[in-house]
Amino acid sequence: MPQLDFEVITLGHGSGGVLTNKLLESGVFDLLKNPILDDHHDGAIFQLEGKLAFSTDSYVISPVFFPGGNIGELAINGTVNDLAMCGAIPKYLSLSFILEEGLTMQEFWEILLSIKFAAEKAGVYIVTGDTKVVERGKGDKIFINTAGVGQIHPKAEISSRKVQAGDKIIVSGNIATHGIAIMSVREGLEFETSIESDTANLNHTVKELLDTFGSDIHLFRDPTRGGVATVLNEIARDTKLGINIIQKNIPVIEEVYGACELLGLDPLYVANEGVFMAVVSADVANDFLAKLKTLENGLDAAIIGEVVEEHPKQVVLQSKIGGKRVINMLVGEQLPRIC
Amino acid sequence: MPQLDFEVITLGHGSGGVLTNKLLESGVFDLLKNPILDDHHDGAIFQLEGKLAFSTDSYVISPVFFPGGNIGELAINGTVNDLAMCGAIPKYLSLSFILEEGLTMQEFWEILLSIKFAAEKAGVYIVTGDTKVVERGKGDKIFINTAGVGQIHPKAEISSRKVQAGDKIIVSGNIATHGIAIMSVREGLEFETSIESDTANLNHTVKELLDTFGSDIHLFRDPTRGGVATVLNEIARDTKLGINIIQKNIPVIEEVYGACELLGLDPLYVANEGVFMAVVSADVANDFLAKLKTLENGLDAAIIGEVVEEHPKQVVLQSKIGGKRVINMLVGEQLPRIC
Repeated sequence: MPQLDFEVITLGHGSGGVLTNKLLESGVFDLLKNPILDDHHDGAIFQLEGKLAFSTDSYVISPVFFPGGNIGELAINGTVNDLAMCGAIPKYLSLSFILEEGLTMQEFWEILLSIKFAAEKAGVYIVTGDTKVVERGKGDKIFINTAGVGQIHPKAEISSRKVQAGDKIIVSGNIATHGIAIMSVREGLEFETSIESDTANLNHTVKELLDTFGSDIHLFRDPTRGGVATVLNEIARDTKLGINIIQKNIPVIEEVYGACELLGLDPLYVANEGVFMAVVSADVANDFLAKLKTLENGLDAAIIGEVVEEHPKQVVLQSKIGGKRVINMLVGEQLPRIC
Repeated sequence: MPQLDFEVITLGHGSGGVLTNKLLESGVFDLLKNPILDDHHDGAIFQLEGKLAFSTDSYVISPVFFPGGNIGELAINGTVNDLAMCGAIPKYLSLSFILEEGLTMQEFWEILLSIKFAAEKAGVYIVTGDTKVVERGKGDKIFINTAGVGQIHPKAEISSRKVQAGDKIIVSGNIATHGIAIMSVREGLEFETSIESDTANLNHTVKELLDTFGSDIHLFRDPTRGGVATVLNEIARDTKLGINIIQKNIPVIEEVYGACELLGLDPLYVANEGVFMAVVSADVANDFLAKLKTLENGLDAAIIGEVVEEHPKQVVLQSKIGGKRVINMLVGEQLPRIC
């Protein structure tokens, strides 16, 4: 952490004047240094050829520091992954802070360091940004927005229009881990566990899969808020096809499963971070799974179901004991501010 | 406003599940309808050739509704203008909300309508977005982030490296209007006035100037937070040149000037919205001014000073009564949450 003559964020740091400049020049710009950011203009300028993807998310997770990470890396990984889900190679990110007066510089610095490492790991540059400060009690420590631009992979043909009956549905890893990690430290809900968030950038794994399987991959989606069940319902709705899921094939860490039982939650509705879902043509499904298992964050991948002609727009689960039931979209709010 | 079965925003609207979908499908997607947004993926996909500009800002203005506008159009115009200041033609915007539980749908809808109209007027598409909800007391009605992508104008060569001694400094209109309009309704500070914010998109005017004057325009900047004085200081710092400003040439509406006197403020430090500054080569300065005066939002434009070899990195003002004084960057916070 740099030597500063202030220990907490004040309203003046959002003024656009001397204090804002001091905050940025004191270490933020140095930390995130790259040739485009160094231009210090109102925006970043760069060249990118071909089809582009553009995505954004605001991050309001509570608490800001949680088992396995903090809001900083979450904000980088989240937008990197949204771009990857479009079949894109993430390139450039914007970074915008809404800070609450009183946030300590030490907390801010720790978050900045996580941002730096997450961006480096994902291979993206932070090229433009903004800092606002709101009065105490008008925010909650820190909210972060990132937006990102990426290049569509030349072999990618990601579209719900390509999904057809027979396609297999794959999850890239154990589900519900992130949501349970956050709940374990949420005020009024704390319970003892060693579960950590699996927040991670998925873009390198996605790129390798696109390199190999190209247009046989019909859809990527990351089941964050609303969980796997909500994404499955969105796919069924958009494609007007049915989906069958086999409960025993859905990978869940035992401790996470136990925590879900304790809290009366279905893991299918719990938020994820470092997990994606893919819908791939049946011909390549086994090869896709085998390849994915060799890649970063893919060891626990599994085929969990398939797309069918029957029961259009509905998701049907075959339970461990053999019964069948319809899985709906998440109703209401399972846990606010999970990402 | 669409018929909805809810009147206020609840935490469930940020769940990613049924309520989030209901909110978006109930009217938001319809209102902002365009072919790219309609794809409903995690991100937007489009093609853009040439050099690109990318910019972001978060908007936390208080109050959300103010004389002359609301946070919605401010969030569109702000990012549109940041792109224009890079010499770009703004094309695609992302739109991300952080809503406070309890925001009424009527307020939200009014803001959405302003967003729609502002985007149409600027000629940009909103192509991707995000909605989060935080608990009552953890936000302040609504924060908005926009990011934007634009194409650099083929004739644009905007860079502080191009600024040289002799260049003229132009402001496009009356300064300090936005800041004073916000202060007039700020709690504890209310005073009677007919002053309204001049929030506006500047991209069409900037494009026409670039069409005509191309590389003779060395710099564009919009003096939002920190005001004209802060931008001038940033230019002096980045170019390592001096700047001379003539007070009597700086356009300020009389009522705004009066309010500044009353509040003990220097209009040079008050935030602006629908105003930009340009640094242009001396050869074209008069023609540039004449042209600008015929364009949207340019009627009150004026040459306010010039770049000089003397007193490098310093901004010197020649006052109305003939004296000279150094103008520094804004120190501290004149008024928080002005944009």
